[in-house]
Amino acid sequence: MFLKQAWYVAAMPDEVAEKPLGRTICGEKMVFYRGKGGQVAAVEDFCPHRGAPLSLGYVEDDKLVCGYHGLAMGCEGKALDMPGQRVKGFPSIKSYAVEERYGFIWVWPGDKEKADPALIHHLEWAVNPEWAYGGGLYHISCDYRLMIDNLMDLTHETYVHAGSIGQKEIDEAPVSTKVEGDHVITSRFMDGIQAPPFWQMALRMNDLAPDVTVDRWQICHFHPPSHVLIEVGVAHAGHGGYDAPDSVKASSIVVDFITPETETSHWYFWGMARHFKPQDTELTARIRDGQGKIFSEDREMLEQQQQNLLRWPDRQLLKLNIDAGGVQSRRIIDRLLAEQVG
Amino acid sequence: MFLKQAWYVAAMPDEVAEKPLGRTICGEKMVFYRGKGGQVAAVEDFCPHRGAPLSLGYVEDDKLVCGYHGLAMGCEGKALDMPGQRVKGFPSIKSYAVEERYGFIWVWPGDKEKADPALIHHLEWAVNPEWAYGGGLYHISCDYRLMIDNLMDLTHETYVHAGSIGQKEIDEAPVSTKVEGDHVITSRFMDGIQAPPFWQMALRMNDLAPDVTVDRWQICHFHPPSHVLIEVGVAHAGHGGYDAPDSVKASSIVVDFITPETETSHWYFWGMARHFKPQDTELTARIRDGQGKIFSEDREMLEQQQQNLLRWPDRQLLKLNIDAGGVQSRRIIDRLLAEQVG
Amino acid sequence: MFLKQAWYVAAMPDEVAEKPLGRTICGEKMVFYRGKGGQVAAVEDFCPHRGAPLSLGYVEDDKLVCGYHGLAMGCEGKALDMPGQRVKGFPSIKSYAVEERYGFIWVWPGDKEKADPALIHHLEWAVNPEWAYGGGLYHISCDYRLMIDNLMDLTHETYVHAGSIGQKEIDEAPVSTKVEGDHVITSRFMDGIQAPPFWQMALRMNDLAPDVTVDRWQICHFHPPSHVLIEVGVAHAGHGGYDAPDSVKASSIVVDFITPETETSHWYFWGMARHFKPQDTELTARIRDGQGKIFSEDREMLEQQQQNLLRWPDRQLLKLNIDAGGVQSRRIIDRLLAEQVG
Repeated sequence: MFLKQAWYVAAMPDEVAEKPLGRTICGEKMVFYRGKGGQVAAVEDFCPHRGAPLSLGYVEDDKLVCGYHGLAMGCEGKALDMPGQRVKGFPSIKSYAVEERYGFIWVWPGDKEKADPALIHHLEWAVNPEWAYGGGLYHISCDYRLMIDNLMDLTHETYVHAGSIGQKEIDEAPVSTKVEGDHVITSRFMDGIQAPPFWQMALRMNDLAPDVTVDRWQICHFHPPSHVLIEVGVAHAGHGGYDAPDSVKASSIVVDFITPETETSHWYFWGMARHFKPQDTELTARIRDGQGKIFSEDREMLEQQQQNLLRWPDRQLLKLNIDAGGVQSRRIIDRLLAEQVG
Repeated sequence: MFLKQAWYVAAMPDEVAEKPLGRTICGEKMVFYRGKGGQVAAVEDFCPHRGAPLSLGYVEDDKLVCGYHGLAMGCEGKALDMPGQRVKGFPSIKSYAVEERYGFIWVWPGDKEKADPALIHHLEWAVNPEWAYGGGLYHISCDYRLMIDNLMDLTHETYVHAGSIGQKEIDEAPVSTKVEGDHVITSRFMDGIQAPPFWQMALRMNDLAPDVTVDRWQICHFHPPSHVLIEVGVAHAGHGGYDAPDSVKASSIVVDFITPETETSHWYFWGMARHFKPQDTELTARIRDGQGKIFSEDREMLEQQQQNLLRWPDRQLLKLNIDAGGVQSRRIIDRLLAEQVG
Repeated sequence: MFLKQAWYVAAMPDEVAEKPLGRTICGEKMVFYRGKGGQVAAVEDFCPHRGAPLSLGYVEDDKLVCGYHGLAMGCEGKALDMPGQRVKGFPSIKSYAVEERYGFIWVWPGDKEKADPALIHHLEWAVNPEWAYGGGLYHISCDYRLMIDNLMDLTHETYVHAGSIGQKEIDEAPVSTKVEGDHVITSRFMDGIQAPPFWQMALRMNDLAPDVTVDRWQICHFHPPSHVLIEVGVAHAGHGGYDAPDSVKASSIVVDFITPETETSHWYFWGMARHFKPQDTELTARIRDGQGKIFSEDREMLEQQQQNLLRWPDRQLLKLNIDAGGVQSRRIIDRLLAEQVG
């Protein structure tokens, strides 16, 4: 069961170009395509004629044409024409609300009429030229909520990402979680430490000494249905940490849009929005490469964790203080699911 | 459920040579092998001793010897001997009626005693030296009836095979379907058109101008259980089209023997029998290569259509006029299935 | 259902070195690791914190540390510590009795308190310097009992291993099976024959004429739960065969530890202990290579036999005289299983 009355990141813009894109989101098998003006539409990936996937077709004159026998589908899910046929009585297929915004294609897998674009959270880093963004997409074979847990408890960095962003002090620093409406915030502050390799690189790229004592922070934000945005950064020690002036820090937002595919798989849109040297495209590429490696380290752990949970379905997992971010996020998902059904 | 009381193409002759061939047909797991005189036999692919597949064995002195412990099986499914054993009381396995004819190995998956070789349709092109044949075999992961639908409605050529045999005029020409007993015929005639690339090549190879206006025809014949033979060709325009003299046309029969493996997979024996330049073996190879590419274009569409139908089992597909060939063919299959059971 | 109250070979010593080893045995998903002193321990491959597999972790200070969030597990299945946490109330996981002996790591998948190391059979060849051992491990996708059948009836050598150890005389020589308590012995003696290629090589390596007439023997011993040890060898003819003095024979023990993974897969630890030229490590390597090839010939047969048995679950297999070794071995397994449950 998924929160279908919500906006999810469905694709990166360049995934939907000349050819339609078939993708399953929240159990809904969809096809995304661009119409004449470049606007993206999504309908079920099922031709009402013989059931062929429309994603094997092509776009012509604003219509999605089935690659099997030429039925032309409109963005409302109604057949528009077909050679030699009257299509008026043809059964319709579902269509989905789609928005392209902030460098992503968003979809609302639920009722189209409830899809209010204003419900997409404002993403300042995506529109403000002081920020630069780079990211990628992984398909991960586990329940999307295991990824939320993963990102709302960064103690795993010490173990899974020991060579890049992990460090012993993460384990040692206390973590605090609070809930504000549907918003969960888990924070950890590590003052007076050595920056780990990734952050030393970031300081260096930002023309700051990399090897001096720093204050480090991680502030994870969960928003339904499944977005996790993490404010991260380091500042030269003693200047206020998170609140230090830009001139002595390197700060970023780790961007995680976690879009369910099936009950045991999801699309993981990962990236980093950084608040320094935004014009440096080489730096963007370099960070993306590093981050891609880091997030691929999570994959095996999460996929094998999923297999273990399927094997031992009755075992209760622990909910420690470090797990509070994930626990609270799931609680919100569960409440919204109950409301959605009710 | 399959029409088991019928002849199917099981293999091409060179597939059953030195080594036995294991193949599942209509859900029956069989092993084919050649006896001393070269004649082909088929029995269940199961050794009554310990259940090993006989297809891993070898042929010796007209017997199929199990490669595990040496049980020698006869073509009637009775164990003939085994080192150090009396085999009289051994349980038998099923044997199947097999015929090698017209360049194919045919099998009757049902009751052997009902298998009358006279029921194999006469194939003139296979025995008349004025014709040449070339073809191949694909394993396709979809219900064999989706392939029948595909071949009884050639409007898909416009979309799936746009670069070779498809052309807009196929869509535009009316199609007519008639049923004569268990024989379904779907015809389409396109007069005064430009030949598509494949047929331009065929005209050229037949020493005819390729780029003049032609009349083109497609006459699809379905015969139970699942054979589709399609008369196809082009003639220089104005000479009578299908009835034009051989000197102004290039004509062929597209040969499709569609043999079920499981409910969602089949063996697709495809080929072309041509009625021009039969001695030109290079041309045979060239046509086979071209046709092999064309039929591989259908594969992805059919296999993904199958996946869609499994995902949405309750959706009714449309039965348009262009679908009449497939609809009528399935009606015959359903009637024969009901008779078979009753 | 498996005989869990028994010792099985779980791994070869070098499989459990720096990194923990995840392996499923008798349906139990375990992780093996070496503590500070080098001793091997095994616990369930499931971290009680969030269900991650402990086999993705590492060993530190005698503890198995989870690679996700750092929970440190002890060899009794109790969490020992975790950064920032009190672990006293954490749920335990199962731990297993493990012994390293005779060049193998042994595990008792059942109740740890019943695991008496004295129940591991004495293996003289593993401790006596007059013997040398070499072997390997295969994962085979079939019921472990099919492998027991295979090894307790060596008539298959004639067919499956025709190029190495098979020969017609195996089929022709009578076989005798006897049961002594839980010990099944199947013997075959072939006197006055030519040695097959493998044994000619063995004679040559042992400085004996390879091409003279020999007496050959095969004495298969089954011990529960699933160990098959086969005394094999050849002696120059007329010196007493099996009882001939060492100076005129080459003799070995084929070692087969067959460890169930799931109902339809097992770990096959194969090898040969030889009683000649024990210091010749090149010979050890050469025999291992040859044996590895021979046992890989069994794999396809066994895996396809398994598929056939799954396809025809109701068919009874024959129990001929040659099958008596397997039949008696399974009878002992069935009796012990019944006792285990009762």
